[in-house]
Amino acid sequence: MLRFAVLGCGRIGRMHAETLGRHPRVDLLWVYDVATAAAAATAAASGAAVAADIDTVLEDDRVDAVLIATPTPTHVDLIVRSVRAGKAVLCEKPIDLDIGRVDACWAAIRDLSPRVMIGFNRRFDPTFRRMLDRVGAGEIGRLEQLIITSRDPGPPPASYVAVSGGMFRDMTIHDLDMARAFLGDVVTVSAQGANVVDPAFADHGDVDSGVVVMTAADGAIATLINSRHCAFGYDQRIEAFGSAGMLMADNQRATSVQFWGDRATASRDPVLDFFISRYRDAYVAEIDYFVDSVVAGSPPSPSFADGRAALRLADAAGESLRTGQRIDVALPGG
Amino acid sequence: MLRFAVLGCGRIGRMHAETLGRHPRVDLLWVYDVATAAAAATAAASGAAVAADIDTVLEDDRVDAVLIATPTPTHVDLIVRSVRAGKAVLCEKPIDLDIGRVDACWAAIRDLSPRVMIGFNRRFDPTFRRMLDRVGAGEIGRLEQLIITSRDPGPPPASYVAVSGGMFRDMTIHDLDMARAFLGDVVTVSAQGANVVDPAFADHGDVDSGVVVMTAADGAIATLINSRHCAFGYDQRIEAFGSAGMLMADNQRATSVQFWGDRATASRDPVLDFFISRYRDAYVAEIDYFVDSVVAGSPPSPSFADGRAALRLADAAGESLRTGQRIDVALPGG
Amino acid sequence: MLRFAVLGCGRIGRMHAETLGRHPRVDLLWVYDVATAAAAATAAASGAAVAADIDTVLEDDRVDAVLIATPTPTHVDLIVRSVRAGKAVLCEKPIDLDIGRVDACWAAIRDLSPRVMIGFNRRFDPTFRRMLDRVGAGEIGRLEQLIITSRDPGPPPASYVAVSGGMFRDMTIHDLDMARAFLGDVVTVSAQGANVVDPAFADHGDVDSGVVVMTAADGAIATLINSRHCAFGYDQRIEAFGSAGMLMADNQRATSVQFWGDRATASRDPVLDFFISRYRDAYVAEIDYFVDSVVAGSPPSPSFADGRAALRLADAAGESLRTGQRIDVALPGG
Amino acid sequence: MLRFAVLGCGRIGRMHAETLGRHPRVDLLWVYDVATAAAAATAAASGAAVAADIDTVLEDDRVDAVLIATPTPTHVDLIVRSVRAGKAVLCEKPIDLDIGRVDACWAAIRDLSPRVMIGFNRRFDPTFRRMLDRVGAGEIGRLEQLIITSRDPGPPPASYVAVSGGMFRDMTIHDLDMARAFLGDVVTVSAQGANVVDPAFADHGDVDSGVVVMTAADGAIATLINSRHCAFGYDQRIEAFGSAGMLMADNQRATSVQFWGDRATASRDPVLDFFISRYRDAYVAEIDYFVDSVVAGSPPSPSFADGRAALRLADAAGESLRTGQRIDVALPGG
Repeated sequence: MLRFAVLGCGRIGRMHAETLGRHPRVDLLWVYDVATAAAAATAAASGAAVAADIDTVLEDDRVDAVLIATPTPTHVDLIVRSVRAGKAVLCEKPIDLDIGRVDACWAAIRDLSPRVMIGFNRRFDPTFRRMLDRVGAGEIGRLEQLIITSRDPGPPPASYVAVSGGMFRDMTIHDLDMARAFLGDVVTVSAQGANVVDPAFADHGDVDSGVVVMTAADGAIATLINSRHCAFGYDQRIEAFGSAGMLMADNQRATSVQFWGDRATASRDPVLDFFISRYRDAYVAEIDYFVDSVVAGSPPSPSFADGRAALRLADAAGESLRTGQRIDVALPGG
Repeated sequence: MLRFAVLGCGRIGRMHAETLGRHPRVDLLWVYDVATAAAAATAAASGAAVAADIDTVLEDDRVDAVLIATPTPTHVDLIVRSVRAGKAVLCEKPIDLDIGRVDACWAAIRDLSPRVMIGFNRRFDPTFRRMLDRVGAGEIGRLEQLIITSRDPGPPPASYVAVSGGMFRDMTIHDLDMARAFLGDVVTVSAQGANVVDPAFADHGDVDSGVVVMTAADGAIATLINSRHCAFGYDQRIEAFGSAGMLMADNQRATSVQFWGDRATASRDPVLDFFISRYRDAYVAEIDYFVDSVVAGSPPSPSFADGRAALRLADAAGESLRTGQRIDVALPGG
Repeated sequence: MLRFAVLGCGRIGRMHAETLGRHPRVDLLWVYDVATAAAAATAAASGAAVAADIDTVLEDDRVDAVLIATPTPTHVDLIVRSVRAGKAVLCEKPIDLDIGRVDACWAAIRDLSPRVMIGFNRRFDPTFRRMLDRVGAGEIGRLEQLIITSRDPGPPPASYVAVSGGMFRDMTIHDLDMARAFLGDVVTVSAQGANVVDPAFADHGDVDSGVVVMTAADGAIATLINSRHCAFGYDQRIEAFGSAGMLMADNQRATSVQFWGDRATASRDPVLDFFISRYRDAYVAEIDYFVDSVVAGSPPSPSFADGRAALRLADAAGESLRTGQRIDVALPGG
Repeated sequence: MLRFAVLGCGRIGRMHAETLGRHPRVDLLWVYDVATAAAAATAAASGAAVAADIDTVLEDDRVDAVLIATPTPTHVDLIVRSVRAGKAVLCEKPIDLDIGRVDACWAAIRDLSPRVMIGFNRRFDPTFRRMLDRVGAGEIGRLEQLIITSRDPGPPPASYVAVSGGMFRDMTIHDLDMARAFLGDVVTVSAQGANVVDPAFADHGDVDSGVVVMTAADGAIATLINSRHCAFGYDQRIEAFGSAGMLMADNQRATSVQFWGDRATASRDPVLDFFISRYRDAYVAEIDYFVDSVVAGSPPSPSFADGRAALRLADAAGESLRTGQRIDVALPGG
C-alpha cells in the first residue's frame, strides 16, 4: 500500500482524494486545505483524516507520496518542501506561471533525486493513449500533421481570468503537452488570438480564442485550436495525419443514443461537458501510473521537464501573439 | 443505338424517358400515354415523339425495346403484345397482382424467346450492388441474417391503396426481391402486420406496418421491416450479417453537413425522401444494364421468373398474415 | 447501510460482490458458493466473509438483502427460502426454465409480501434507459416498431448448451424483457430459428440463430434478432421507430478513435465484446436501484411477474418455432 | 440558349465541355486547344466544333461566353481578348501567378464593363453551399473559427510542380477563397510549411505540407490545413465553429456501405479521391450559376476581384513562410 496525502481540496483535489480513497493499492492518510470545510468534506468523502497543517503531512514518515492540487502560486513551494521531505510528488499543472520560478524550483530539487510527476491527465485518456500507441506502432506511417481541438464549455469566472496566466499558459498548456507527446520537441511556435467570447479576457490583456501552430524538426506541423466557450460542450478532439493514414479521436457522450426526426437525423447527445466526466478514466489511470512508478522506482512521466517544456511553449505562443513573429524555441533538457 | 419506346408517362415513365433521352447509346423514338398531356410533356422533356396509340409503337420495326411504365393491370397485356411484336421489354414491377395472370402471361410468351426484364431498380443501386458484390466475394463469410428496413416517407392516396394489391405486393415486393438477390430462393415465409399509419389501409383490408421473416434452405434468415410512413424520410437500409462480419447500407443524404449544438450533436440532414432522388443512380444503372443485355443478347435480370417469385412470396406473406401460419413455399423455376 | 449477502460466486456473482463491496450505502457481510475457492476469492475481492452454508446467511438477522447468482436450477428454492427468512431478493435471470416451477415459486411466496427483483440488467443500461425515457416522453410519437439486435460474441461451451433451456429462454429472454419494457404486454409471438453457428446447438435440439416477432395490442411490432456468434463483438442495439421519429442505440467501444486508411475510412474499434464490460454501468445502476427500492420499501422492478412474463414469451417463441404457428399469449398479472 | 466556346481541352476543359454539351440552356459552339487531338476528342464528346484558332472563336458574333481552361500563363491574355471581344468569361483559377499581371489585366478591362467570373468551383459544392447558407442564416451564431482541411490524394508530376507557382498559389488558393466566402476580407496572414511528401517540392523551393492561419477584422480566425498527399483520398472538410454551435462538412464516398469485422467496425469506403468525382455537382452548379448570371446581366461571383484577393492572400502566406512574420494585408475593393 502506498500512503498518500492530498494537498488542496478544491474540485480537482477532492476528485483525486476520492479516487485515492477507493484505490486498492493506496492508503490515503491525509487531506489538507486552508479552507477547513473543504478539507472536512473531502476527508468524509475519501476516508482520510484532515491535516491541521502542511507540516503535519510532510513530517509524517508514513506518507510516501503527496498529491498537490492547491492554487498554482503555491506549487513551487510545496514541490520543494515535499521533495525535501522525501516524498514522491504528483503536482497538478502548471508547475508555475513564471519560467524563472520553475527553473529555481528545479535548481532547488535537482540534486535530491526528485520523483515529481506533472498532472497532464490527458496523456492518460484511453482514447488519446490508444492513438499515441498506434501512431508509435507506425500505423499511419510518418506523422506529418497533428490537429488538436480543445474548447472549454464556458469561460471561467473573471476572478480566475485575472490570475490564470493567460489562455496559453492556463488552457493551451494541455495541448502543448499533448503535441509534445505526439511530436517530441518542437522548434518553432506561432500564435494567433482573438477576443470573441467574453470581455473579461480583453480586460486582463488575454485572448479567449486562439490558434497555435508549431513545427517539429522533422517537418511535422501541430495546430492547436482553442476557445474558452463551446456551445455543444467540452470539445476535445485530436487528428493525427500521417503518410499512410490518419487517426482521429472523436468527442464522447454519455450514451450511444441517436435521434432521427424530420429536421435532423442520426443526432447524438451533446458531448460530455465537464472535464471530470470527460477525463474520469484518465484521472484514474494517471493515479494508477503514478502509483506504479513510485512503487517501481521508475522516473514518472510527464516529468518536471515536461511541465517546464509546456510552459516554455506557452510563453513562446504569447510572445508570437504579441510580436507577430514565428518564435524559434530551443528546449533545454529540463 | 438501341431504339426505345416508353409506354406510360406517369412519374416513373417520365423519369425513364428523360434518362433514355440523354442516354448516349439510346434513341428514344416514341412515348405513349392515354393521358395525352402527360405524353406531350414527356416527349418535350425527352426529345421523343408522341405515339397516337400502342400499335403505332409495336408495329414500328425500328423499335428494339419497350419500357412499360403503365398501371399494373395493363402490364400482362403489354408484355405479351410487346414480346409477340419481337420487342425486348423492361417492365416496371409488379408483373401483375394475380399470380394466375402472371403464369398465363408466361405461358403466352415462353415459346417466343422472350427478353423481359422486371424493374426491381434497387438491385442496381450502387450501395446495395456493392454489398451484394462484397457478400458474394465472401467478405462476411457465410450470410446468416439479412435485415432490410424499407419505410416510405408517407402513405399513398387512398385511391391508390384501393388498387395497390396490399402492402406486401405493392411495397414489400421490392424487399422480397432484394432478399432473393442476397439469399437465393427461400423456403418459409412468416408475416406480421398492423394498422398504425392511416385508417385507409384498414378500410381496404390492408396493413400499413409489417414484418416479414423468411428462411432459406441453408439456414439464413431474412427479416423485412416495412412501414407506409417514416417521419425522417425514405428509410432504406440493409444489414447483411455473416459468420465473419457484417455489411450495412446506411441511409443517404443530399449533403455531408453535420450540425453540433447545445441540444444535439453530429446531426445530419433528413435522408433523401423521394424514391427518384434516393434511387436516381439505380434507375440510370438499370437502363444501362438493360441496354447492355439487349445489345449482347444475354438474358436480362431480374427476369420474369424473378418477378413471379417475388409476387409468390408476397402472396405467402399475405397468407401468413391471415392464418398465423408459417408458409412453406416451393418456388418453381419460372 | 443495507447489509447484503451474495449467493453464488461465479463470474456474475463475483462482479456483483465487488460492486457491493465498494458501494457507499452497502455493507456486504457474506458471500457463499459451493465451490469454496470461488467464495474465498470473491470474499477477498469484496471484503466480505465466506459463509459456511446458506443457512448461516439466511439465519443472520443482520442480512437485509440476498443477491442470488447461483445456477438457474437453484433459483426457485433460494428465492423461497430467502423470502421466508424475510430478506429482499435480487435474483439473476431467469427465475427458472420451467414455468410450472415459477408459478409454484410464486404460490409459495405471494402471501409473504415478497420483495423480489429479477436481474434484467439491460433495463438499467444508461443508453437503453435514456431511450426508454425519451420514448416515454413522447419524443418519437407513438411507438410503432421496435427492433432489438442481440448477438453474443461467441457460443457458450457445449456443456452449458445442454442445460441452458434453449436460446429463447437463455439469451432471448433479455430481449423479451426489453421489448416488454418498451411495449408493455404483447399479444402474439412468432419465431424462426436456424442452426448456423455451432453443431452443439442442434445436438441439443436448440437453435443458434433466430428472429422473434411479437405484436402488442396497440399494433406495435417488436422484432428480436439473435445470434450465438458475432464476429465483431457483442452486438447490442435497439431501434425504436415511432410516428414522429426514431431513436437508436448504437454499439459501444472502449475509445472514440477512428482510423482512415487507403482501404477503409472512419473505422472504429471492435465493439465491447464482454457482457460485463458492455453493461458495467448497467450492473452498478441495477444495484443502486435495488438498494433504493429496498430502503424506500417500494416494489422493485423488474418484478417477479416480469421475470415470469419473459419466460412465458420465451416458451411461446419455442412453441412457435416448433409448430410454425403464431402464438396468442394472454399474460396473467403475475 | 447561351452560346459557348471552351478554350483549353485538358482534363478540366473537357469536363466543362461535356457539361456544357448536355446543358439544356447552352449551345456549345466551339472548343479549342493547341493540342488538336485533345480538341477533337473534346468536340466528339460534347458535340461542339473544333476551332482552328482562338480568333475564330472570338470573332464569332454568335458566341456569348468563353470558358477559359488553358494553362495559367495564358489566362490574362485570353481574358483581355475575350472581354474586348464582348464575351462573358468564366476563367479557371488562378487568374495568374503574378499579382502585377493580374492588376494589369484588370487595368486593361476595367472600363469595358467586364463580365468575368473565376472558377472557384468549391463555392458551388452543395455541401459547402449549404454550410454557407446556414452560417449566413445565423444557425451557429457568430462565426468564430473556421478550419478548412484540404489534402490532395497525391502530388502532381514534378514538371507541374516547377510551374505551379507554389502550393499556396496553386492549391491553398481554393481554401483562401473559401475562407473569404465564409469570413469576408481578412486582415492578417501567417503561414507554416514543411517538406514531407516529395523531394520535388523542395527542389523547386516549394513546400508540400502547410498550415495558414488568418484573422478577420471581427476576430474570427481561419485555419487552412494542406497536404500534397493523403493516403485515404481527397480530404475535403470544413468546420465552421460559432458562438451557438458548429457546422461540419464531412468527406464523401461513392456508397453508404459500412463494414463491421473483428478488427474494425463501422468502416466506410475510402473517400472520393478525384477532384472531378468529388466536385462533379459543384462544377455543374458553377456552370448553371454562370449561365444564370450572364442571362440576367448580374455581376458574376466569385468575381475578378475575388480571384485577385485569393492570390494576394497566397502571396502573403508565402511571405509569412519566408520571413516568419505575421503579414498584415489590406485588400483593395477590387
